[in-house]
Amino acid sequence: MQNRVYLDWNATTPLRREARAAMTAAWELGGNPSSVHAEGQHARALVEEARGTVAAAVGAEARNVIFTSGGTEANALALAPGLRGRSQQPAEKVIVSAIEHASVLAGGQFAPGQIERLPVLPAGRVDLDALKAMLANRPPTLVSVMLANNETGAIQPIAEVAGLVHAAGGLLHVDAVQAFGKIPFRINELAVDLLSVSAHKIGGPTGIGALILGDNVADLPALIRGGGQERGRRAGTENVPAIAGFGAAVKVAMATRETDMRRIETLRNRLEGALRQTQGSVIVAEDVPRLPNTTLVAMRGLKAEITVIGFDLEGIAVSSGSACSSGKVQPSHVLEAMGYGPDLAKSAIRFSLGWETTEADIDQALKAWRKLASALLRGHETVLEQF
Amino acid sequence: MQNRVYLDWNATTPLRREARAAMTAAWELGGNPSSVHAEGQHARALVEEARGTVAAAVGAEARNVIFTSGGTEANALALAPGLRGRSQQPAEKVIVSAIEHASVLAGGQFAPGQIERLPVLPAGRVDLDALKAMLANRPPTLVSVMLANNETGAIQPIAEVAGLVHAAGGLLHVDAVQAFGKIPFRINELAVDLLSVSAHKIGGPTGIGALILGDNVADLPALIRGGGQERGRRAGTENVPAIAGFGAAVKVAMATRETDMRRIETLRNRLEGALRQTQGSVIVAEDVPRLPNTTLVAMRGLKAEITVIGFDLEGIAVSSGSACSSGKVQPSHVLEAMGYGPDLAKSAIRFSLGWETTEADIDQALKAWRKLASALLRGHETVLEQF
Repeated sequence: MQNRVYLDWNATTPLRREARAAMTAAWELGGNPSSVHAEGQHARALVEEARGTVAAAVGAEARNVIFTSGGTEANALALAPGLRGRSQQPAEKVIVSAIEHASVLAGGQFAPGQIERLPVLPAGRVDLDALKAMLANRPPTLVSVMLANNETGAIQPIAEVAGLVHAAGGLLHVDAVQAFGKIPFRINELAVDLLSVSAHKIGGPTGIGALILGDNVADLPALIRGGGQERGRRAGTENVPAIAGFGAAVKVAMATRETDMRRIETLRNRLEGALRQTQGSVIVAEDVPRLPNTTLVAMRGLKAEITVIGFDLEGIAVSSGSACSSGKVQPSHVLEAMGYGPDLAKSAIRFSLGWETTEADIDQALKAWRKLASALLRGHETVLEQF
Repeated sequence: MQNRVYLDWNATTPLRREARAAMTAAWELGGNPSSVHAEGQHARALVEEARGTVAAAVGAEARNVIFTSGGTEANALALAPGLRGRSQQPAEKVIVSAIEHASVLAGGQFAPGQIERLPVLPAGRVDLDALKAMLANRPPTLVSVMLANNETGAIQPIAEVAGLVHAAGGLLHVDAVQAFGKIPFRINELAVDLLSVSAHKIGGPTGIGALILGDNVADLPALIRGGGQERGRRAGTENVPAIAGFGAAVKVAMATRETDMRRIETLRNRLEGALRQTQGSVIVAEDVPRLPNTTLVAMRGLKAEITVIGFDLEGIAVSSGSACSSGKVQPSHVLEAMGYGPDLAKSAIRFSLGWETTEADIDQALKAWRKLASALLRGHETVLEQF
C-alpha cells in the first residue's frame, strides 16, 4: 500500500513535537493558575510565558492577549455590539466580508439585522470602493476582514481596509487564523484593532486560540462571563496545557516560517503548474497575492465531493472548500462571492501544504490527479467503481 | 524534604492516565471530524464514542450532549434568554442560587436586570419556600441551581427544585460540574432540563466540558455561532483529543466511583473529626448531605490566605473558598449567603480529596494543621516567619 499523503493542512495541521512536549510537561505540573499555592503559581508562569510569546509573534502587548477556546470563539468575542474604541461610541453595526469564515459571517453577537456583507472582487480580494461607500455617513461600525482566505489563500489588503475604517471612525477586526505562521505581519503596522489567531492551524493543540487587541480598543464586553480570568474578558479555568502547547508551537512556527514557507511555496508552485495543464482547470485567485501553501483549483465537469473521495481512495487527503462546510453539497460561499457559477464552484478542490509536505507527496498527488481527472471528466460518478 | 500533599482536588484534579492515553492516541490520528476523508472520519468516530460515554454517565441521549470548552462555557450557553421548553415561551428571567459558581452568578447571556438570586438557608441548601414565592405568577423563568456546591460540598435538593420549577412552567439548569463523578445521578430522575459537566474535574483534560439537554428543551440559541458543529449549537473545530480524553476519564470515573468515594469519605471523615477538635472550628454545611470528598472549615481568628500559605510552606496544598476567587481577599460568597459574618467567612479553608489521596496524606495534613492552628491562633500573621 502507498504512503498516505496529507494535503489538507488548512483544515488540520498535525500537532508539532514541541507543542506535545509542552503539553505533557504541563500535565505533569498540574495546577490551577488562580490558586495561590505553589502548583498554581507554576501554572500561572506557564500561561504568562505563552502569552508573551503569542504577543511577540504579532508585535502586540502581552496584556492585550486574551486566550480563548479557539479561532471561532475569538471571532465571536470580537464581534460584540458593545465594543468601543477610545473616544468612540459602541459599534452598532458590523460589516463582514463575503468570504469570511462561517464564525465571522454569522456576525458573532450582532443580531441578523445589524450585519452587512462587504462584496469581493472577482480576483478574490475585498472591494475597497464598496467598503468606502458602505462606511460613509454611518454611526461607529465594526468591520471584519480576514488577513488570508482559508479556501483560496488570497491575502486581503488589510492596511488599506484599516485606513478606510479608521477614517470613518470605526474599528477593524481581522481573522488571521489562516495567515498566522505563514506570512509575517504586525498588529500595529496593519493598524488592526482586534486580531484572531488559533493554535491548531500552526501545529499547536486544538481548543485554544486568542483574540489580540490593539491599543485603540477601550471596552470589550466578555462573551463568557464568570470568574475573573483573562482580566475579566474571558471566564473559565485557564487551559494551561493547551496554552503552553500554543506558546511552544508559536515559537517553532516563528523560527522556521521563512525557510519552511519558501520550500513549501516551491512545491505548491510545482503542483499548481501541473494542475494548470489539465484542460478547463482554473487556479482560483491566481492574480492576487496568496498564502504560499494553498491552491484552490476549479474544473468544469468535476464534482468536488466525488473528487475528494477519489483522492481519498488514492491515498491523498484533500478538501472541497473549507472543512467546516465539507460533507454538505453546497457551493463554496467564497467562490460564489467571487462570481463563480454554482457548477464551477461545486467543482473546486483545495490542496494545502505544510512543513512535512515532501517532493514525493506532490509527485503522488499529481499521479492521482492525472488518473482521476481523465476518468472523472469522462465518466462522472460511476468512475468510482473502478477504484 | 517531605512529600508534597495535594488536598485541593475540587480546584485541580490531576489528569488520569487513561485520559492521557486517549489524548495522545488522538494526536497520532489527527483529522478534522468535519472532513470527509479517512482521517476526518476516524476523528468523527472518536467524538461520537465519547459523546455516547458522557451521555450514558448521566442517563441522557447522545444527541443531547453538546461539547463546550468547559463548565463555564456550558453554563454560559445554558443561561440564554431565548431558551425555550416544548410548548413554552422563551425564558425572560433567570433565577440563580446565591451559592452558584461565578459563571452562573454572572447570569450567562441574561442582562443584569433579568437576573435574580435565590437565597440559601444557613445549613447550606437553597431555600425552597423562597423559590416557590419567586416563581409565583411569573412569565417562563429559567432557574439555575447547582447539584453540589464546590466550596462546601453541600448537595442541593434538585428533585424538589425541579418540581417547583416545572409546576411554574419554567426550565431548570443544573451545574453538576462538582458533583459529576462523585455522586451518582441521572438527568431524567432529577428532572433536569440542562446539565453542565466539565472533564477536568473528573481527571479529564482542561478545556472541555458539555451541556447536556433533557428532552423538554425545544430551542437553545447558540452562544458561539459559525460552522455547523454540534448540530449548530456550538461552532468551532471539535477539540478531538480533549473530547477523547473526556470520554476516557468518564469511563474510569464511572467504573471506580463507588469504591473510590467510599474510601475517600472515610479519609475525609477522619480529617474532619480531627479538625473538629480544634477550639472554635466550624465544619460548614455539616448538617446537610455533602460530597464525600469535601470539607470546608471556618475558624474565628484565622485568615484564610495566611493559613493557605502556611499549609503551602508545610507542603500541603489547600484552598481558601473557590479557586476562582483565591488570591483576592474577599469573603466567600457562599459563606456570606449562608449568613456567616465576614470574619468567620474569611477564615474558611477547603480540603478536597481525590482518588490518589492516602492515609499518609491525611496524617501529614493533620500534623501541619496542629502546628499552624496553634501558632496562627496565638500570633496571627507574623507567625509565618517561623516557617
